[in-house]
Amino acid sequence: MGEDGWIETEMRVRYAESDQMGVAHHANFLVWFEAARVEYLRARGFSYRAMEQDDDCLFPVVEARCRYRAPAHFDDLIRLRTRVTRRRGPILTFAYEAVRVGDGVLLAEGETTHVVVDRKFEPRDLPDKYQLPVDGA
Amino acid sequence: MGEDGWIETEMRVRYAESDQMGVAHHANFLVWFEAARVEYLRARGFSYRAMEQDDDCLFPVVEARCRYRAPAHFDDLIRLRTRVTRRRGPILTFAYEAVRVGDGVLLAEGETTHVVVDRKFEPRDLPDKYQLPVDGA
Amino acid sequence: MGEDGWIETEMRVRYAESDQMGVAHHANFLVWFEAARVEYLRARGFSYRAMEQDDDCLFPVVEARCRYRAPAHFDDLIRLRTRVTRRRGPILTFAYEAVRVGDGVLLAEGETTHVVVDRKFEPRDLPDKYQLPVDGA
Amino acid sequence: MGEDGWIETEMRVRYAESDQMGVAHHANFLVWFEAARVEYLRARGFSYRAMEQDDDCLFPVVEARCRYRAPAHFDDLIRLRTRVTRRRGPILTFAYEAVRVGDGVLLAEGETTHVVVDRKFEPRDLPDKYQLPVDGA
Repeated sequence: MGEDGWIETEMRVRYAESDQMGVAHHANFLVWFEAARVEYLRARGFSYRAMEQDDDCLFPVVEARCRYRAPAHFDDLIRLRTRVTRRRGPILTFAYEAVRVGDGVLLAEGETTHVVVDRKFEPRDLPDKYQLPVDGA
Repeated sequence: MGEDGWIETEMRVRYAESDQMGVAHHANFLVWFEAARVEYLRARGFSYRAMEQDDDCLFPVVEARCRYRAPAHFDDLIRLRTRVTRRRGPILTFAYEAVRVGDGVLLAEGETTHVVVDRKFEPRDLPDKYQLPVDGA
Repeated sequence: MGEDGWIETEMRVRYAESDQMGVAHHANFLVWFEAARVEYLRARGFSYRAMEQDDDCLFPVVEARCRYRAPAHFDDLIRLRTRVTRRRGPILTFAYEAVRVGDGVLLAEGETTHVVVDRKFEPRDLPDKYQLPVDGA
Repeated sequence: MGEDGWIETEMRVRYAESDQMGVAHHANFLVWFEAARVEYLRARGFSYRAMEQDDDCLFPVVEARCRYRAPAHFDDLIRLRTRVTRRRGPILTFAYEAVRVGDGVLLAEGETTHVVVDRKFEPRDLPDKYQLPVDGA
């Protein structure tokens, strides 16, 4: 676990994720943020798979934002840092940073906001057992 | 509709589908074949969405094969040709060709074999109303 | 072409774009916005392929944002509306709306900001011939 | 490293890789095979990135095949096993197996055949330093 509530995980840029500009296509960052979010939950003791299957809690994205600071390339090892920055009722905001491990360059920063819903897409509160600390701003 | 039972549809190669080789990444052909399969069914009068939702018929892929003949590039307009080559009980095989519209070059040929299942992934027969002609071999 | 400088194009949600929530995965909207951007340019008389190949103008994304209003589903036909909302030196901002054709529901709104660069990722001005009108705000 | 020349690597199924059938979309296996191929080369002491950049050796796929044995699900940890089964001039065939780590179930088997080319897509021999042992059949 990193400082300031950040949970870290690493992934390697796949060839399929590169585009003809020779960089990782920008849409992949949302996919990586999502994978990082799952690892964030796992590090907190929660399985997002079980949250969906057993507790009928889905986290659709209602807003996503990403600022791209430097291009990522195929085969780069990337450290994703994730934390929760806001939680109010069924609304949850995660923040992310993507840093290249090799040279420490910040590649991107982003946020996603989610509303917790049940399988019918009705908003619902997260069960009490899922205590996610709110860090930073 | 094309000759020999082929049903045709067109799509344009997206930037996100290119890779750093400067060509469409090979995995996209399976995605295009799938989109072409949906259009094949639509041209036959069937909605794959309704097959799943209303008739509990899912078509998971049990085998996929693609032979790549020439690279496709970003912004190429591609004609996908689809037909059914085998149907036996719950087993269904589709064949595909991908041709670049601009110069008629054959880009790829492929097949996918499916087993019709219900939502619990139990094999089942396709309802009688879904008559798909078997063409070619 | 739509009102207010919007350029419209349509696309159908692919099966591969659905996720296990039963909706189109949110990252696909960035891919669709990009495809819509290419069609916007084409409607203005420009080929993004030629911009890259012949004029050494690449449009990497420096910021992307999307607000998701309603879920899109597999096989939905979606109308993408695109316009340029800001242009200053090498910086260009596009805005997008995604509307389901069947019922007119607004699915998502977004923006992407780009910096025009050459193949070495050095910022550069867009050649004069590429006049893109700035519409709306 | 596994037995029989197999090189192993693991990856976790991402949410974005699931589809509305509730399983990992079949096209992802080609993406995973590719990532496994890169790890195979790394385990043999080679960087595919360097092969492209420094030695002008690209490995486009000329044929891909996958047999799906059991569905993979979101968050499954998957072991990919890779080896080279044929090498003749510029032609190279890799074989793959995907096994779920949790229960050892074989999810898929596949092969990809590649032709080594230079940046202009002209076939070329792999430099002598890239000795890849041919295992199995």
